[in-house]
Amino acid sequence: MTKFSDNDVVTLAMGAGGRETGELLDGIIRPAIDNSVLAQGHDGARLTFPASGGSSQLAFTTDSYVITPRFFPGGSIGDLAVNGTVNDLAMTGAAARCLSLGLIIEEGLPLKELQQIMADIAAAAQKASVQIVTGDTKVVPAGRGDGIYINTAGIGEIITEGFTVGPEKISPGLDIILSGTVGDHQGTILALRHGIDAPELASDSQPLNGLMEEIIAKGSSGVRCLRDATRGGLAAVLNELASAAKVGIVLDSSSIPVSPAVSAICELLGSDPIAMANEGKCVVFTEPSVTEAVLTAMRGHEAGRDAAVIGRTTEKNPGLVAVSTELGALRLVEIPSGELVPRIC
Amino acid sequence: MTKFSDNDVVTLAMGAGGRETGELLDGIIRPAIDNSVLAQGHDGARLTFPASGGSSQLAFTTDSYVITPRFFPGGSIGDLAVNGTVNDLAMTGAAARCLSLGLIIEEGLPLKELQQIMADIAAAAQKASVQIVTGDTKVVPAGRGDGIYINTAGIGEIITEGFTVGPEKISPGLDIILSGTVGDHQGTILALRHGIDAPELASDSQPLNGLMEEIIAKGSSGVRCLRDATRGGLAAVLNELASAAKVGIVLDSSSIPVSPAVSAICELLGSDPIAMANEGKCVVFTEPSVTEAVLTAMRGHEAGRDAAVIGRTTEKNPGLVAVSTELGALRLVEIPSGELVPRIC
Repeated sequence: MTKFSDNDVVTLAMGAGGRETGELLDGIIRPAIDNSVLAQGHDGARLTFPASGGSSQLAFTTDSYVITPRFFPGGSIGDLAVNGTVNDLAMTGAAARCLSLGLIIEEGLPLKELQQIMADIAAAAQKASVQIVTGDTKVVPAGRGDGIYINTAGIGEIITEGFTVGPEKISPGLDIILSGTVGDHQGTILALRHGIDAPELASDSQPLNGLMEEIIAKGSSGVRCLRDATRGGLAAVLNELASAAKVGIVLDSSSIPVSPAVSAICELLGSDPIAMANEGKCVVFTEPSVTEAVLTAMRGHEAGRDAAVIGRTTEKNPGLVAVSTELGALRLVEIPSGELVPRIC
Repeated sequence: MTKFSDNDVVTLAMGAGGRETGELLDGIIRPAIDNSVLAQGHDGARLTFPASGGSSQLAFTTDSYVITPRFFPGGSIGDLAVNGTVNDLAMTGAAARCLSLGLIIEEGLPLKELQQIMADIAAAAQKASVQIVTGDTKVVPAGRGDGIYINTAGIGEIITEGFTVGPEKISPGLDIILSGTVGDHQGTILALRHGIDAPELASDSQPLNGLMEEIIAKGSSGVRCLRDATRGGLAAVLNELASAAKVGIVLDSSSIPVSPAVSAICELLGSDPIAMANEGKCVVFTEPSVTEAVLTAMRGHEAGRDAAVIGRTTEKNPGLVAVSTELGALRLVEIPSGELVPRIC
């Protein structure tokens, strides 16, 4: 574990979802509050109610959204705040039922912008069939925030009856399905920040709960784990899962869907699409016997049209992720580190 | 309803918990996301799981904490973030079971401070018998935050079997019990900010779930409503409840407990203790038949030692709150407005 020195401070890199984020979490944050539920290492906590021995299987998760700019092609901080949390629940195998909404607004935010963000929140909530049931609003002085930061927490009902999905269910010999093109969200934000005119780019901000329900319906207990590829992209989530499950992962680079527009911006900026953040894409670990059925079901769903098998888990090289290049060689996929792209969500 | 103009912006006053906060919520935020659960107007949402018709009665709530300074006599932003949310659940008649933790950290925060805040969170969670089960950490650039902002959301199990507590249960003819001295939290923060040396002042930051369980055990369905007096103090919460329940409220000023230190700082700064924020005090609306039993139980609990009956609800003057002065006259208690004290929690 990283040893921090007495004079260390929090850096931007610690919030970017890569290696330094892991070091902060493992070194400072998790040790203080550790418990068995937190240790599940899942996108959301699985809980049973009543705690005295009940039958309601719920999932609970939270995320804060600090993206800049607040509005971008394909979405805004408002719909991101709904979709991101709905998706974390979905990845736990839970259908989102309700969200909380915590707003931290900087003094001076135009009310018209706030109104637009609230409308985006409402529209996203309706699309994902979830209600905002409780909330809180704080205002901080000008210069102590950046327009608006949003936290949502969500409660969902677990729909996997008799089985669970999660990192602990990953074993060697599974297929890995990706739900669609990678890099659309980060590509869009990067183009905006660099003033690059790329009209065909749009964030993929979208709810994945409907897609998840299809996946579970068709794959049942053959579905072992779901994970959305947000901050740090495929590279970060696959490394995290390989490490947690102690399996190796081998990807086939030619099967990973990337749009021409994202390819172009990646070439321009020297970025790697598989390390770029998405806001509506997930990986699914399946037993080979259900892979075809799950894939077909995903392709029939709006959020999974471009789904593809992109790799598999192996016994060899536990904890490592490799990708086959076009020349047939294997290249190690590292956990992204450094500042990546701060405030991408 | 307040009409906002096209060029209006969010002001600090809109976040201070007084009149302007209500205008922002009613004018912009609630209309966008309205639904029947949100409309309960409670400190937390009451939910039933499974949604298909289940037996788990849960409460769900959220709060963000932006207090400055981060450390103060009697507590820190860390324990406040636990106690505040535990207390909102308690006021809904729910025993807190688990919390989410969303950290928005400003680049440059010393890791030692973060470590102390995490330790305070852990200690407060242990004292309140609640687990942090899921979390998220974001880092914003220097100058776009203020050290750390914390959001917690909480799930609790409702312990009032066969009855509910809430604003809708308030009627004329009830007693109003206050759990202890008012103004300690805000008095402490004000003294710090003004550089006033007042060693006997300390925030009352504390969990109220244990006290709530005593109150419900002794008062049962004779307990009609609980509410903690946070931002805007007694003045804000009693006005809100009088207005929601369409009853009048008359307080006896001589029975409202105020510590000598808080009295002194209020005189110095021209503040009114009943409009000052608390972080571990609540009001309880009781049927007269259970008032004595509830009061005795409260006084036997650490968090209710100084509990006192401070007033009653009336049919007269619905929506208004009045306080009897020492000369016997009645003075109207208005909803605090203006900037009050920004970032008090």
